[in-house]
Amino acid sequence: MARRANVSRATASLVIRNSPLVGEATRQRVQAAIEELGYVYNLGAARLRAERSHTVGVIVPNLTNPFFAELLAGIESVVDVAGMVVLLANNAELVDRQNTVVRRMREHGVDGVILCPAAGTGTDLFERLAEWNLPLVQVLRHFSLHADYAGVDYAGGMRQAVEYLSSLGHERIAFAVHGPVHPAYQERVDGFREAMSAHGFDASMIVRVPDQLAQIAEATHLLFEQAAEPTAVLCFNDVIALGLAAGLYDRGIAIGRDLSLVGFDDVTDAEAVRPRLTSVSTMPAAIGENAARLLLDRLADPALPPRRMVRPTVLHVRQSCGPAAVVTA
Amino acid sequence: MARRANVSRATASLVIRNSPLVGEATRQRVQAAIEELGYVYNLGAARLRAERSHTVGVIVPNLTNPFFAELLAGIESVVDVAGMVVLLANNAELVDRQNTVVRRMREHGVDGVILCPAAGTGTDLFERLAEWNLPLVQVLRHFSLHADYAGVDYAGGMRQAVEYLSSLGHERIAFAVHGPVHPAYQERVDGFREAMSAHGFDASMIVRVPDQLAQIAEATHLLFEQAAEPTAVLCFNDVIALGLAAGLYDRGIAIGRDLSLVGFDDVTDAEAVRPRLTSVSTMPAAIGENAARLLLDRLADPALPPRRMVRPTVLHVRQSCGPAAVVTA
Repeated sequence: MARRANVSRATASLVIRNSPLVGEATRQRVQAAIEELGYVYNLGAARLRAERSHTVGVIVPNLTNPFFAELLAGIESVVDVAGMVVLLANNAELVDRQNTVVRRMREHGVDGVILCPAAGTGTDLFERLAEWNLPLVQVLRHFSLHADYAGVDYAGGMRQAVEYLSSLGHERIAFAVHGPVHPAYQERVDGFREAMSAHGFDASMIVRVPDQLAQIAEATHLLFEQAAEPTAVLCFNDVIALGLAAGLYDRGIAIGRDLSLVGFDDVTDAEAVRPRLTSVSTMPAAIGENAARLLLDRLADPALPPRRMVRPTVLHVRQSCGPAAVVTA
Repeated sequence: MARRANVSRATASLVIRNSPLVGEATRQRVQAAIEELGYVYNLGAARLRAERSHTVGVIVPNLTNPFFAELLAGIESVVDVAGMVVLLANNAELVDRQNTVVRRMREHGVDGVILCPAAGTGTDLFERLAEWNLPLVQVLRHFSLHADYAGVDYAGGMRQAVEYLSSLGHERIAFAVHGPVHPAYQERVDGFREAMSAHGFDASMIVRVPDQLAQIAEATHLLFEQAAEPTAVLCFNDVIALGLAAGLYDRGIAIGRDLSLVGFDDVTDAEAVRPRLTSVSTMPAAIGENAARLLLDRLADPALPPRRMVRPTVLHVRQSCGPAAVVTA
């Protein structure tokens, strides 16, 4: 078909994918050839492979967060082995910006997109991508049942942490949270509530702290302004745990003795702080690898039903928790 | 010319840039049109702009290092405002792998490349890129005088740190290093030696520690196996400082009182550890912004002579240093 239209395969492929990069004259010529040859749009997988741009669009909310950096490294490692490259953008957690970068990815003819959707993403985004025939994998945040998803069992991680703290005698457990509300946020909060209720504990101590690491320490006092004083604090992520660890140090509170602290994500720093941070491992690099594999599978077989790959978490016990102090009334 | 050859501007541009993505027949047709029209390869800047792919290749050694994540965020922010996107790859600090990803970037028709060259990069890489007419900006590591460079004044940073420690009475200062030997490594080591010599101090206490954060703490004993016991430790980067801080905590050595510690780079964690880490700020996001600006300037005017943008460092004094203890023989 490309030969009949007297254009390169790459150009023909751009026309088929409705790329705005192709000039109108070329588009008409290729379209004419398509009709003349009775070319069917729904090409077989093998045929499609040859027409690909070998680029994968990756969109994350924030590049400086080490969690997303590890996720990206995992995606890149699998994409690289497949002989493809990553086109990278950040949506800055803004829906409008996300629309812009998704459009730009399409203009660059990516074969598919791995997206960590911004908080507030609506169904319109998924409809648009489906119209464009642009394969999509959602990562970390599950917005649409109609697209592939790679994530982690946040609720399971919350259960593991509450179970462990309960085994040390803790009942008054606070949950320190921050950031925008998105499905991954909601899953963690719901997971915390369910795990606490399952043990008959009060799940109402949910404490919002600032987003920036350097400011979290100064919000530590919020932990001690609750209805009951917590003996343990479970954190939404390790950034919060590291910030609170600094704030507790500043107040002369010994972590693991006076107050137990559990992080979530288990980033590299968890091992390096003192006392070493007990944290729920989510292994972002492995999630990234899963997301890339889902996309490669989808490219090989576009007819696959939507799939979910949800990794289990692992509680990594270190030094930041101890037995609950005996209650003194 | 594109019209004469009956191809899109994008395809004509690929031919002009010698892209292997274009089929042989198309290439010949475009070449014929070029000759027929007396088309001159050295197009004006405005003309070139219209032929661009609007992608920038970015190659870094390691995506999970927060330093490179911040650098990448800085690059992406400027590239994004220019309406372009980032094609991302890592060279894993391997020259062979770097050759592969550079070739792949070219095949994808990037307008230019921002590269943090792997240790051991030879002049052949720069010659090849010049042959391909592929604009290049070196970032952080200055390998070639014939290409643009965005970096930071490592030697100046070393001077600031040694000056500050000297002002607190320190003379026996160890320098803790790790990682592969590349120009940025050499600049820091030379900078340390010169700064120490300028004060009349012995610059021979250079201590190599492991690369991984979690293993650095266990190498802390190396600090105390030197010819003379150091009263202060200057670190090659903050990763080393955080690792040693953990190791010193494990040995019951109070940072800032028993031993002074200075980091380098001033990543986010420097503010969150306790005691807060004094560190030399290199501001990787700002270096990334400079690299992107150099590349945009180069694309606008390929005839510019090679330029260097070297940012000054800023010593960020926090709590990890104190006066040198009185010498007890």
